[in-house]
Amino acid sequence: MKLQIFDSSLRDGAQGANVSFSVDDKIKVIEALDRLGIDFIEAGNPFSNPAEMQFFQKIAGMKLSHAKIVAFGSTRRKGVSPDEDANLRSLLAAGTEYVAIFGKSDIRHVTDVLKATPEENYAMIRESVRFLCAHGKKVVFDAEHFFDGYKADADYALGALAEAHAAGACTLCLCDTNGGVFPDEAYEITKRVTERFPDTIVAIHCHNDGGLAAADSIEAVKAGARQIQGTFLGFGERCGNTNLSTVICNLQLKRGYECIPPENLKDIYECAMAIAETANVAIPENQPYIGMNAFAHKAGMHADGVLKYAASFEHIDPAAIGNKRKLLLSEISGKSAIYDKLKSYFPSLDKSGKEMAAIVSALKERALAGYQYEAAEASFVLLVEKILGKYRSSFDLISYKIINEQPAIEGKVASAIVKIRVNGITKISASDGEGPVHAMDLALRAALADFYPEIARVSLTDFKVRVLDSDKATAAKVRVLITSANAADSWTTVGVSEDVIEASWIALVDSIDYALMRK
Amino acid sequence: MKLQIFDSSLRDGAQGANVSFSVDDKIKVIEALDRLGIDFIEAGNPFSNPAEMQFFQKIAGMKLSHAKIVAFGSTRRKGVSPDEDANLRSLLAAGTEYVAIFGKSDIRHVTDVLKATPEENYAMIRESVRFLCAHGKKVVFDAEHFFDGYKADADYALGALAEAHAAGACTLCLCDTNGGVFPDEAYEITKRVTERFPDTIVAIHCHNDGGLAAADSIEAVKAGARQIQGTFLGFGERCGNTNLSTVICNLQLKRGYECIPPENLKDIYECAMAIAETANVAIPENQPYIGMNAFAHKAGMHADGVLKYAASFEHIDPAAIGNKRKLLLSEISGKSAIYDKLKSYFPSLDKSGKEMAAIVSALKERALAGYQYEAAEASFVLLVEKILGKYRSSFDLISYKIINEQPAIEGKVASAIVKIRVNGITKISASDGEGPVHAMDLALRAALADFYPEIARVSLTDFKVRVLDSDKATAAKVRVLITSANAADSWTTVGVSEDVIEASWIALVDSIDYALMRK
Repeated sequence: MKLQIFDSSLRDGAQGANVSFSVDDKIKVIEALDRLGIDFIEAGNPFSNPAEMQFFQKIAGMKLSHAKIVAFGSTRRKGVSPDEDANLRSLLAAGTEYVAIFGKSDIRHVTDVLKATPEENYAMIRESVRFLCAHGKKVVFDAEHFFDGYKADADYALGALAEAHAAGACTLCLCDTNGGVFPDEAYEITKRVTERFPDTIVAIHCHNDGGLAAADSIEAVKAGARQIQGTFLGFGERCGNTNLSTVICNLQLKRGYECIPPENLKDIYECAMAIAETANVAIPENQPYIGMNAFAHKAGMHADGVLKYAASFEHIDPAAIGNKRKLLLSEISGKSAIYDKLKSYFPSLDKSGKEMAAIVSALKERALAGYQYEAAEASFVLLVEKILGKYRSSFDLISYKIINEQPAIEGKVASAIVKIRVNGITKISASDGEGPVHAMDLALRAALADFYPEIARVSLTDFKVRVLDSDKATAAKVRVLITSANAADSWTTVGVSEDVIEASWIALVDSIDYALMRK
Repeated sequence: MKLQIFDSSLRDGAQGANVSFSVDDKIKVIEALDRLGIDFIEAGNPFSNPAEMQFFQKIAGMKLSHAKIVAFGSTRRKGVSPDEDANLRSLLAAGTEYVAIFGKSDIRHVTDVLKATPEENYAMIRESVRFLCAHGKKVVFDAEHFFDGYKADADYALGALAEAHAAGACTLCLCDTNGGVFPDEAYEITKRVTERFPDTIVAIHCHNDGGLAAADSIEAVKAGARQIQGTFLGFGERCGNTNLSTVICNLQLKRGYECIPPENLKDIYECAMAIAETANVAIPENQPYIGMNAFAHKAGMHADGVLKYAASFEHIDPAAIGNKRKLLLSEISGKSAIYDKLKSYFPSLDKSGKEMAAIVSALKERALAGYQYEAAEASFVLLVEKILGKYRSSFDLISYKIINEQPAIEGKVASAIVKIRVNGITKISASDGEGPVHAMDLALRAALADFYPEIARVSLTDFKVRVLDSDKATAAKVRVLITSANAADSWTTVGVSEDVIEASWIALVDSIDYALMRK
């Protein structure tokens, strides 16, 4: 059975802490969701500020292959007619086929917050929906606080839906605005609604304050809901909205519903990455289905088991959604996992030999010093090369000196001098930069250019810093991860030190060694 | 009704990526869980390595007010008698009253992974439980892959439980080892078990691969399970184990179960922080109940609503578990939220005045530049002081120069010279340090000491670095957060720059200004 998926990353999702989208970002998110086959994309509230309205005008001509854009607003204000209401007028002006408006369905909010009579609130719903329908809009009615309202006064809450339905709403959306509903309540209450409105699409819109939004949505579908609202990565105020990536994977892979076109399932991971990158928000590593570690195995026994028989510790095949199995390189990794990781680099390595034992013990020792190779495979390969006696350094460092100063000189706050030796030839180079690591990187590349012209084709693409023991304040150890790329490939390296410059230097040197080694 | 809570942060939790505990860490975690009133703490597998066994010996004398320590292992190996099995012997040697052992209950794993006959696996369960009970242990039997096993062959899976039960196990634990079970299945299958074994404690042990572990556990309790296994912060392999903080809050605050002593509910947030700090893992900001943003309100309208009527956007009172409401200072914060935050600092501020408008617009501008004040209230207060014309700088910077060099000089890689002016008097100071920020901090404090002796009582307690646009690699902007404290208080400041040194400098100067301003 087909379910409609309604994504509100750009509207409810943008209410989340640390989430904000530029106009270009919003367009990228729309494109990613449309490519995946999401049915509805709630793109913002055109009434909230002029920039939002301009945004709707800007995307009016956007060619989408599948998705419908939805503009969000509310029922009319108390005491005005719909055509006097600036919010409703802006919904018309947004120029979308679909609009979503929220209205109150919890009697306590009607009397205590809105300070309106029960009938006045019904009239606000009825007249607003009728007005929008009369202007040709398809209307999704969001019943705010529906579940809490149903528990307080079921007849009043259902009456709010009935008003919207009679006025022409195409979809009745049940909102768990405060996020506190349990799955069994979601089932029971949704069931009452789908029985009462059998000819209408009922939607479920949950928040994750109880950690139950995915389960609530699944139970509502079981009770007859046919549209799931949420945000693809779970963005949203407080604890976030229903994570659509979780719900789509659960329902489509395991319960046979069609949420997106089946041939697009394998692109879920990629879509998640595209949205996360655009929002500049990291996906939690342990996020169901799409997290970097969602299929990561650490314990020796589990990693062993999964290599023998994948289904032993995996609920689905990660490739089905475009994610990958991962064997973590950690101090408690079994030999099997480490060997499995290394065998493509070192085909002659013997799993039960002395060298493997030395590698396992080096890994434990480096872990104690703060190194983690889980995300820095290139540094791990270099470490193994050193243990195997195969490593040849591409240069010797004689000295570096990095200076940061205020006032800045010609706008540059940092400069670096790097002196190296290659095959007996000494070379000294200098550079200034936006910061000390930038200056150091440029100076080192300048020094290497004479010896290794191919370095010009390698660029640094990502730079991350993590303070390890932050309670030691500015004397704390930091771990730096650097990702580098050439046209064909990318690789990540790691450095650890109390000194952020030295940690960056270690990661930078690994990054260059790795590039030259693979040549 | 009382439910038993069984925490495996130190055993199953330690399988998670980025989670590892030293011996001291483990003791701190045990103390925190015991203080909260958790019933069982699974502390490790004494057979896995000698350090684990030493750990059990070390904690044998530990005085706990409430919790029982549990040692974890497995059923005997195939083809040996229990007293020949080193794993079972190490469980006896661990010296705990309770032990948990896992055994197979999924017929496919018996034949395909264990390569044993169905009866041989039953014998392994029976003899292992009997052996441990005969030595005076209370035995929790973990039925691995129970739900998948039940779906494949219900009789065989139930038979595994029956063997453990007949042999004397006090608790039968149903494990969703791969984390793929749905809440309705968790209910139905647990119901069959509790009906079959009405006189025994049935436990539920879930993994979060489908994002449903909390819901599964809640449904299992509804079906009669009386023990919930998980990890307090959701640590665990892949997507983690059941998050106990979520489940305890849901069941105790909303469904009337007693998971921990009621008077300890208010300490849940503190317990979570203690474990997170010990594990050096940040709690996700949007984590239900205990996240920093679990009760954070950003949208102008929501923040307005919550100030008028707390229940309008909060499912529980955050104080019930020791967390706090938070109004986020962001570019989309309404004036109400900003005003509410500032009024204790600036009692004469007028909510509708020109100054408030200037503050709101400065906040938007700074947000564009990469500043976030959500965690750095002290910097925000200083910014407002500047806007109100109330700010007086505690010193003028004339220049600084920070040098990083290799080879290090007497073991120090960094040195700093800072020149400042206070009341017309110039002072230059220098220091070396573990890294550039450390050297800079020490040099600045040395220069200020003559003018402001109270600076000696302020120390930096936390230092965080976040790369903002990490795709710009080493030329990316970084945001530095510094937390400082004196005996009475602590405060956090922020700096942003392409140069990590300059960003640190900005945060450091705010930190000192704030300390001196409040004097």
